[in-house]
Amino acid sequence: MHVVTILCLVCSWIKLGESVCYRSPNACPQTEKDFLNVHIVPHSHDDVGWLKTVEQYYYGTNNSIQNAAVQYTYDSVLEELWKDSEKKFVSVEMEFFSHWWKEQTSHVKRKVHKVVERGQLEFVGGGWCMNDEATASYVDIIDQMTMGLKFLNDTFGECAAPKAVWQIDPFGHSKEQASIFAQMGFEYLFLGRIDYQDKALRMSNGEMEMMWDASDSLGTEIFTGVLYNTYGPPPGFCFDVLCGDETIVDDPDSPMFNIDRRSKQLVAYILEQSKHYRTNNIILTMGEDFHYQYAHAWYKNLDKLIKYINKVYFNSQIRLFYSTPSCYGQAVKNALVEALPRKTDDFFPYASDPHAYWTGYFTSRPTFKGLVRQTSNLLQACKQIQAVTVRRRSNVLNQFQRSQAIAQHHDAVTGTAKQHVNNDYIVRLDQGIRGCSGVFSESFNHLLSLNGSTLNQEYCAMLNISQCQTTEQNSPFIVTLYNPLAFRSSHTVRIPVTDGSYAVTDHEGRLVASQMVPIAEAVLLLPGRNSNATNELIFRAEDLPPLGLRSYHVKTPEGKPGKRMLRSRPRTIQLPNKEDILVSAYGLSLKFDRQTGHLVQIGNESVQQQLLFYPAMAGNNSRFEFRASGAYIFRPNGTDALPLEQPATKLTTIFGPVTTEIRQHINTNTMQIFRLHRDESFIELDWILGPIPIEDGIGKEYISRFTAPEIRNNGTFFTDSNGREMLQRQLNHRLTYKVNVTEPTAGNFYPVNSFAYVEDKSTRSRMTVLNDRAQGVSSLLPGSLEFMIHRRLLHDDAFGVGEALNETAYGVGLAARGSHWLGVENSRSVARFLAQRMARSPILTFSPTALSAEEFRKSYRMEVALLNRDLPPNVNLLTLEPWDDQGRILVRFEHFFGVGEDEQFSQPASISLKGLFATLNIWTVEEVNLSSNRPIKILDTDELVLKPMEIRTLILSTYQ
Amino acid sequence: MHVVTILCLVCSWIKLGESVCYRSPNACPQTEKDFLNVHIVPHSHDDVGWLKTVEQYYYGTNNSIQNAAVQYTYDSVLEELWKDSEKKFVSVEMEFFSHWWKEQTSHVKRKVHKVVERGQLEFVGGGWCMNDEATASYVDIIDQMTMGLKFLNDTFGECAAPKAVWQIDPFGHSKEQASIFAQMGFEYLFLGRIDYQDKALRMSNGEMEMMWDASDSLGTEIFTGVLYNTYGPPPGFCFDVLCGDETIVDDPDSPMFNIDRRSKQLVAYILEQSKHYRTNNIILTMGEDFHYQYAHAWYKNLDKLIKYINKVYFNSQIRLFYSTPSCYGQAVKNALVEALPRKTDDFFPYASDPHAYWTGYFTSRPTFKGLVRQTSNLLQACKQIQAVTVRRRSNVLNQFQRSQAIAQHHDAVTGTAKQHVNNDYIVRLDQGIRGCSGVFSESFNHLLSLNGSTLNQEYCAMLNISQCQTTEQNSPFIVTLYNPLAFRSSHTVRIPVTDGSYAVTDHEGRLVASQMVPIAEAVLLLPGRNSNATNELIFRAEDLPPLGLRSYHVKTPEGKPGKRMLRSRPRTIQLPNKEDILVSAYGLSLKFDRQTGHLVQIGNESVQQQLLFYPAMAGNNSRFEFRASGAYIFRPNGTDALPLEQPATKLTTIFGPVTTEIRQHINTNTMQIFRLHRDESFIELDWILGPIPIEDGIGKEYISRFTAPEIRNNGTFFTDSNGREMLQRQLNHRLTYKVNVTEPTAGNFYPVNSFAYVEDKSTRSRMTVLNDRAQGVSSLLPGSLEFMIHRRLLHDDAFGVGEALNETAYGVGLAARGSHWLGVENSRSVARFLAQRMARSPILTFSPTALSAEEFRKSYRMEVALLNRDLPPNVNLLTLEPWDDQGRILVRFEHFFGVGEDEQFSQPASISLKGLFATLNIWTVEEVNLSSNRPIKILDTDELVLKPMEIRTLILSTYQ
Repeated sequence: MHVVTILCLVCSWIKLGESVCYRSPNACPQTEKDFLNVHIVPHSHDDVGWLKTVEQYYYGTNNSIQNAAVQYTYDSVLEELWKDSEKKFVSVEMEFFSHWWKEQTSHVKRKVHKVVERGQLEFVGGGWCMNDEATASYVDIIDQMTMGLKFLNDTFGECAAPKAVWQIDPFGHSKEQASIFAQMGFEYLFLGRIDYQDKALRMSNGEMEMMWDASDSLGTEIFTGVLYNTYGPPPGFCFDVLCGDETIVDDPDSPMFNIDRRSKQLVAYILEQSKHYRTNNIILTMGEDFHYQYAHAWYKNLDKLIKYINKVYFNSQIRLFYSTPSCYGQAVKNALVEALPRKTDDFFPYASDPHAYWTGYFTSRPTFKGLVRQTSNLLQACKQIQAVTVRRRSNVLNQFQRSQAIAQHHDAVTGTAKQHVNNDYIVRLDQGIRGCSGVFSESFNHLLSLNGSTLNQEYCAMLNISQCQTTEQNSPFIVTLYNPLAFRSSHTVRIPVTDGSYAVTDHEGRLVASQMVPIAEAVLLLPGRNSNATNELIFRAEDLPPLGLRSYHVKTPEGKPGKRMLRSRPRTIQLPNKEDILVSAYGLSLKFDRQTGHLVQIGNESVQQQLLFYPAMAGNNSRFEFRASGAYIFRPNGTDALPLEQPATKLTTIFGPVTTEIRQHINTNTMQIFRLHRDESFIELDWILGPIPIEDGIGKEYISRFTAPEIRNNGTFFTDSNGREMLQRQLNHRLTYKVNVTEPTAGNFYPVNSFAYVEDKSTRSRMTVLNDRAQGVSSLLPGSLEFMIHRRLLHDDAFGVGEALNETAYGVGLAARGSHWLGVENSRSVARFLAQRMARSPILTFSPTALSAEEFRKSYRMEVALLNRDLPPNVNLLTLEPWDDQGRILVRFEHFFGVGEDEQFSQPASISLKGLFATLNIWTVEEVNLSSNRPIKILDTDELVLKPMEIRTLILSTYQ
Repeated sequence: MHVVTILCLVCSWIKLGESVCYRSPNACPQTEKDFLNVHIVPHSHDDVGWLKTVEQYYYGTNNSIQNAAVQYTYDSVLEELWKDSEKKFVSVEMEFFSHWWKEQTSHVKRKVHKVVERGQLEFVGGGWCMNDEATASYVDIIDQMTMGLKFLNDTFGECAAPKAVWQIDPFGHSKEQASIFAQMGFEYLFLGRIDYQDKALRMSNGEMEMMWDASDSLGTEIFTGVLYNTYGPPPGFCFDVLCGDETIVDDPDSPMFNIDRRSKQLVAYILEQSKHYRTNNIILTMGEDFHYQYAHAWYKNLDKLIKYINKVYFNSQIRLFYSTPSCYGQAVKNALVEALPRKTDDFFPYASDPHAYWTGYFTSRPTFKGLVRQTSNLLQACKQIQAVTVRRRSNVLNQFQRSQAIAQHHDAVTGTAKQHVNNDYIVRLDQGIRGCSGVFSESFNHLLSLNGSTLNQEYCAMLNISQCQTTEQNSPFIVTLYNPLAFRSSHTVRIPVTDGSYAVTDHEGRLVASQMVPIAEAVLLLPGRNSNATNELIFRAEDLPPLGLRSYHVKTPEGKPGKRMLRSRPRTIQLPNKEDILVSAYGLSLKFDRQTGHLVQIGNESVQQQLLFYPAMAGNNSRFEFRASGAYIFRPNGTDALPLEQPATKLTTIFGPVTTEIRQHINTNTMQIFRLHRDESFIELDWILGPIPIEDGIGKEYISRFTAPEIRNNGTFFTDSNGREMLQRQLNHRLTYKVNVTEPTAGNFYPVNSFAYVEDKSTRSRMTVLNDRAQGVSSLLPGSLEFMIHRRLLHDDAFGVGEALNETAYGVGLAARGSHWLGVENSRSVARFLAQRMARSPILTFSPTALSAEEFRKSYRMEVALLNRDLPPNVNLLTLEPWDDQGRILVRFEHFFGVGEDEQFSQPASISLKGLFATLNIWTVEEVNLSSNRPIKILDTDELVLKPMEIRTLILSTYQ
């Protein structure tokens, strides 16, 4: 007997790291039918970086900025939960919790298991952070949620899987996010911030609880509740060390005895709140930012109130108890007597008062937003490569994935953190880039080398400013492209080089048509650019295989440049010109106005494009009317965008066999490059902008406005939701409530992550513009789409960040560069395909080589496909990543057309897994939910059918 | 066996309230001979009121003023101590600890017993507060220390009796305080604040530790150490929620890893500190004001440092450990190899920088300081009465004693708390007054009533502004005087009455000589005075018995006033007068200057008196030189006191059989009243002053300067130490160090609580002035004594209180009234006797009666003595109070002459207890130490001998 007991003990010790936890059946407090059940939910809202960096928040350094130390929160909360099993707490951000967990002794970890089991410590959301919903891509959202939930699953097992999620601080709520949550198995979604007019109406109509139809294609729905006081406690009832509220004194002998009066106050608040909700359950969110560092103060005072009110107000049938979001959600659901109102649109834009439209952050920090998209693509490619080669997670991947997850936080990608914090995000992403650069180098060599010789593959992160050491300093060199798409794809390659001429040889030894184009002066002069490159070598990589690698050999030819090596001669046209300038190439033609140099026509259609700016409102924020435009808030001074001070000075045209460019020179800091590509149906438009001038003391917000006056859209336009399903927008209108848009410009901006379009219902003609990073967009004029591309502001908007969004680099205002792709074809499907190509452009690496093209072909494979065949054209390989160290691979297939979007591509798609992956031998296939923390079933077939917008998540067990 | 076990358990439960605690023999950490032993002492300095009231500090309300909640300190420290037996904490102020203790469950109390036993929670000082040393009377100091130590003794038994005391915040240190501590059995005294020049010299001479000869008469001594950094932690190592210092990160994987660098910093500090101390032991005081509310942050970071440094610096022979003041003191004592330097004077005045002499607080809030003296006397009388009647403590007594103890705090009686806090102190004392007023009423009736009929005895707290409801509205009425002195004493009684005439009949039915004097106009006009009284009825109460009660019957006579009822006729002399004004009465004569009205001569001796003022320095405190005069700091603008704007306008003389007054009218707000009393050898001088004018934007500090130009004192003068032993002061000189007095006026002020004098060594002639409340005094001019009497300032002095000391009442600047007694006799003993009479003046109560004097004598005893005989004239009955509910009585006898002060009275005094107390039957007499928490012996004799300045403390067991 003794031996058995001892073994048993050992077992439970060993199992601690695994999923041994079970959730107590009475984890939720009993509610009473005839009582008003008041769910008291202690919580701390811990920003994954904002005024301080993530690590500063964790350790509590840099406290002069903000008194916050998450390490103490978990230390002290655990003590409190351990002492009293009635107490509850909510943990949300796994970045912080996992950091703390790592530092704990096994003794403490056992205690944590216990309080999780008992339902005292409830994980809510459980993502790595509480991601932003406007400017984060669905790819990154799914990843960051999966990462957090995987940590929970690995640590506590299924019992800890959250049923509730609360997005209590993001500044507006997207439909796609709700759909993702539903697909991840969340049952209850709670929101902190919704438009003040919407909230007021919901309060008076009893519509604070609703059922959200989160996907038109999938029919997902999720119970959604709007919190009463954002996420804060009743005013006056904040007992954190960070609050100054009057503590509860229940000693009747004390001259400060106040529990009688204080309870009366709280009960009045409770009764008022309960008027606005549908059942006899209400929630009191007892916490604020970085609360419960010293949990005892909170709990001690709450204990007194709960005890006193339950006793004194028993006859008033009021009952207070500690609870959690999931317990509250469940109690509400159980108590509902009639159907909930339904919600079909989203919660954008968010206004907190008549002059505070939170639409500036859609664009704030455009270069950072650009970086986050770049690293998103790079991370996916890195995961793919690791999945099909080493089939294990690496530290590099873990670090990069963590950095990318952190960057999705609602003060990160939003551009609303302090500058030093944003720098920290960038450093983290840069580490990820460097790490994956090494992964690429190693894996590509592994996949390509025929004789064991290796190349030093450089990933050039600075291609966007035409800078790359390897290509500038070497000849010959190798360019290797990796196509992260699961179907064949072509790409126009642009490589920074010094002057001279280059021969490009492909994988089959053929000389490829190329052209040399001088780098635009505005790029050469970009502050911080450190490059000798003066030209770009351009060629076309045709038909890159799915998940495929292909190398090109580039060298300065001996003797004269060959016929296929064109040196493009720029031709400059001073403005104003005698007549409009017409440029035609590859079957497309663009017309530019002879006076202004603006694009005015594409083919036969009138399509105008122009950069304009809004002067920003300055203000001291002392009253609503004095709100300044800032990191969060967009508030132009006036309603009309102004033209730049002077029109374009000249146009430069550069014709070539691959690409034809029209460069529009506006001033030293500002230019646009229109590009036509052979065999492409879109116009690429690069904008280069900044430093934004502020010498006049006025902040400015720049837009790029596209107008197709013949499209009669009647104020309607369409934007994507986190890069997936589309939503219809209507000027000065909200679908579910009557709105008075008190900021006629800012109040009509919406987030766009992938593309937006306007459409003429009668002619079905459409103008689609794709964007390369999150931006704000509106359609204020008929047939127009205006994207906000850059902002520089001189005032804080008084929502906490405490800094004006006045980004500088190298001592001057920040310059930014970005792209829009203007769809020309009228096919409704083309935007979907282009969006995939924009988000998942090929990864380029460069290596010097001493070998000739011919010699190189003998030492290296120059093309490898990691998929044996293309996926169907409407299916995206959303995820391919190593899931653990045992060869399990996480795969997500995504149907990226919505119901009815396209006659052909909106049909269900069918995939066969059999022999799909070139390097993977699949043992079993388990289907799991979207966040991969709940099993669905073991698949007994190779065939997989995807409905429109469906994502199916699989865990492949593989062997080599 | 089982039964026994159960009984045993019950026993230990029952015993919890008693003294079952023992102190672990290894309560102190082991020190190492070859190591530098670094005693890390976690502590919180909890002001018993300062910026917030005591209760606000305890509960943590009003946190916008200061984030402080002592309840959480004890909550969270206990948790930490309980989890780790290495950890220590220091508890100092019993006001807070006892409050917390009262609120704890028996479960928590058991834990506390345990951590006390283990030496983890050490009580240091253990008084009710950390009393001020400049402005508190020894009577109140002994009481407040006794109260705290009694609580500890009752709660934890002897094991918790502190051996160490630290006065870490008071602004200078008195010799009497050190002597009291020594007499209370303290072994180690640590000081936070000493003069910056003194400290610098001690640092360089290795004299931070010393032996303090604390009493010239008693030869007491106490080990005294000066702390290195006041009471704060090494700069940069403050880990409280209230600090912003960089937390310790010991995770080498963290980008914020810093323990290596941070340890280096701390070790450098430790090595520097150790240079200035005599042994291989140093103390790091790890705490500040109201720290450890959330103890975990402090301990977590200290834990990391201790662990890391002990490991990494082991070879450098540095060892850190948690310790306590007594463990540190013991370690130092054990490690000392040579005799300590000795200290014989005190630590006044305290300067923290060249322009910050903390001598303003000696006088700040003069009316509050006056109240504290008034309540001190009242409380002693109240205790006496309860001791000899009910022989039990009452709630009234407990409340009053607590209020009086709180008032001794170093931001209370000092006048350096915020106004709202000072109001709280006053409310508490007022409750005490009201409570004891009831006690007097009840006890006097009990003692005096012959037939069971009772009087409603009113205690008139406002006699100082000549206001008393009973005497104004009734005739006849009874005046009852209680003499709290242990010897016969006479008193001039002044009673506010409306116009008319009154017959005063004494206890033996004799008509007593009385006079009616009009109340001075400046008094009648005092803001807030609410009285119909226009006159004062004055008569002489001769030879009140020791601890004796005597009643007088007062009524408006029918018919004409009798011969013994004089109506004094004021005579006004306009100034300037033709000649000097000479006033003679009862053998004394005063001469006033015909121009200025100033006193210029007493008898044949030139003695001048004048009110003057110092204009206060205004400043923004941004640098030492810009320091403003404030609540703490006295900093005149210039060195010379200025005369009042205009001299006196007139003198009024009022002659009478009992008292003769000379009223010096200066302006509406300012006057002085010189009083000669029949059969008295002193001149009473009332000053009435305020609102102090500030219309010129300049704060002002008023002094009353007495000058006897014939006394050649050579810059020497004498002041009492907390009202007991005298100290010699020398202008611009300190006994133990060479001083550069950079503020020639403020730097020569010293506290005076009882009296000061100047003396001519050759002629032995002396001028003595007694004061009725704590004040600052100096002797800047030959033969002079100047008392600062009132201050009104317009700037804060930037030592934390954050308010200018600009007291107002009834919408105008505060008016104050006080007295000095100017000794005329040259006898060296007279001041001692007068001081006793001033501190322990009779308590007056008033009752309306319908009875005639004769009828009254039949119903009431009109004289009762509670002592059966006088004590010897040099012995004071310092304490007589109920000690518990079992009839035990605490008694202290005090010899109030120092060695060599007087030929006769400095001789030892002998007392017999036998039959001394009229109402007490004494069973046993136990002698205890001064604080009554350590027994000395059971006395087997009735005779008690007191050496000069000796206090003997007894606990009498009595029965009825």
